[in-house]
Amino acid sequence: MSRPRFPRAASLKPAEAATVGIAGLGLMGGAVAMALRRAGVGDPKAGGRLLACDRDDGTLNAALTRQVIDQGLSPREMLPRCDLVFLCLNPSTLLRFLEARMGDFKPGALITDIAGIKGKIVEAVEKNLRQDLDFIPGHPMAGSEKGGFANAEKCSFQGKNYILTPLERNRPENLEYLEALIRRMGFGRITLTKAEDHDRKIAFTSQLCHLIAAALIDCEADTEITRFGGGSFEDLTRIAMLNAPMWTELFIENRELLLGRIAQFERSLDSLKALIEAGAETELRERLARVRDRRAAMSG
Amino acid sequence: MSRPRFPRAASLKPAEAATVGIAGLGLMGGAVAMALRRAGVGDPKAGGRLLACDRDDGTLNAALTRQVIDQGLSPREMLPRCDLVFLCLNPSTLLRFLEARMGDFKPGALITDIAGIKGKIVEAVEKNLRQDLDFIPGHPMAGSEKGGFANAEKCSFQGKNYILTPLERNRPENLEYLEALIRRMGFGRITLTKAEDHDRKIAFTSQLCHLIAAALIDCEADTEITRFGGGSFEDLTRIAMLNAPMWTELFIENRELLLGRIAQFERSLDSLKALIEAGAETELRERLARVRDRRAAMSG
Repeated sequence: MSRPRFPRAASLKPAEAATVGIAGLGLMGGAVAMALRRAGVGDPKAGGRLLACDRDDGTLNAALTRQVIDQGLSPREMLPRCDLVFLCLNPSTLLRFLEARMGDFKPGALITDIAGIKGKIVEAVEKNLRQDLDFIPGHPMAGSEKGGFANAEKCSFQGKNYILTPLERNRPENLEYLEALIRRMGFGRITLTKAEDHDRKIAFTSQLCHLIAAALIDCEADTEITRFGGGSFEDLTRIAMLNAPMWTELFIENRELLLGRIAQFERSLDSLKALIEAGAETELRERLARVRDRRAAMSG
Repeated sequence: MSRPRFPRAASLKPAEAATVGIAGLGLMGGAVAMALRRAGVGDPKAGGRLLACDRDDGTLNAALTRQVIDQGLSPREMLPRCDLVFLCLNPSTLLRFLEARMGDFKPGALITDIAGIKGKIVEAVEKNLRQDLDFIPGHPMAGSEKGGFANAEKCSFQGKNYILTPLERNRPENLEYLEALIRRMGFGRITLTKAEDHDRKIAFTSQLCHLIAAALIDCEADTEITRFGGGSFEDLTRIAMLNAPMWTELFIENRELLLGRIAQFERSLDSLKALIEAGAETELRERLARVRDRRAAMSG
């Protein structure tokens, strides 16, 4: 039995009529399911479906009861039905899932993920992906310090950034399709870049920031310290309420780039510290003024 | 002519009927004036007044036009009329102002300030304050990355922290009076503490956080980096749009305590970095979980 090498992507059904599967209904998977439902993607009235698998049956039941999904299934039952799959798993689980379930995906399916590192994912996909499947790696820049499906509703995508790191083999029509879907979920800017570029920039904007927040809390045992907070400490350290297993993976998987970013940050901190120590008012004032101008030129 | 050594504080007039002066109508002085006005303090209908002095006549005129104050005056004209004075000046300007204007204050007046460091202020006040005056040092934990009177309206005091570092010589009835006024301005928790304790804690919650934000921006020249931001980078670095002259003063004036806090932070960052470098997953995960729990136990 021969299968056409590049079947027309099943995912190119109108999004309303597509069967969409979400693997992992944690904070992000749950928020993706809710955003797709709100956007009318996988709508049973149009012949579509929203399916999900999760290792926790309680989560699947909660999602069913709230009509966020149409059915909770095992991966083996779900994958063969899906035109489009969102893999909403921690990086290591995602890699194991792909390896174990490669045979289960529907021929020609479009697959995407939401992992916070992209190099390792791209590497695995380029090596092992079934020829007929199309995998577009992605990273929605959203989240919350409160994890799990129970907090998914509060995780807003509105106007947030979304990074895609397409592969050369990705079909242009699938990329367009996914971009349109991402916009329908409420995201703002979509940036297309290389996986390594993503990992280097994310090491700075996301991983280093979380690590700094963790270090700030790590070095102060007094939980009453927030009596002396004016908002900046609270804003900086809210993200220290992190999902420890996931961030451990992200920090360690991206360690080379992250360590480079830490070193850059430490150099800047050291040189500001030296100006303070020396009481070099004029230089410090000029340096801070440049910093202010640079930050003002950034959005957000 | 002899003057009683401890005249009954003129400031103990009902706040509505008091003449209140604000020295410096920048972001904080402007916000204080607006909060007092909204609270009905210094109300002309009750015989009170809100006065202000500022080196910039344009600012005084803007405040007059918007009826935030009743009159703009020179310090020499304003101070002899005021039952209560808010000194809303940068630390160095505040110290010069106190020295130059000590003779101008109304006998028995209650004075407070809003400077972000307290040790130097307390030292100067304990040494040089006129015997009949009562000075209660304070620090409203509010602000904005957008400075100046033009942004004062957006600087909310609602539910914010306020620190007071009273002196032994402060009259209890004046302290009560000021605390009541602070609550009427909308602030939440008022914490009374020693100046040194304030300076040590603020070095952490405020100065170190601003310095970290500045260092983060200092080490990244690409202003398009926020395309890769998911909120944490933006939240952490918004305060890098700092008032360079003021923060230069705060960093350098409090440098001893600040340098100690930087060292603590660097130790924590270094030890987290070592775990990442070593790929010590279990230890890193446990450390991050402890950080998460500690931050969750803090308010805000």
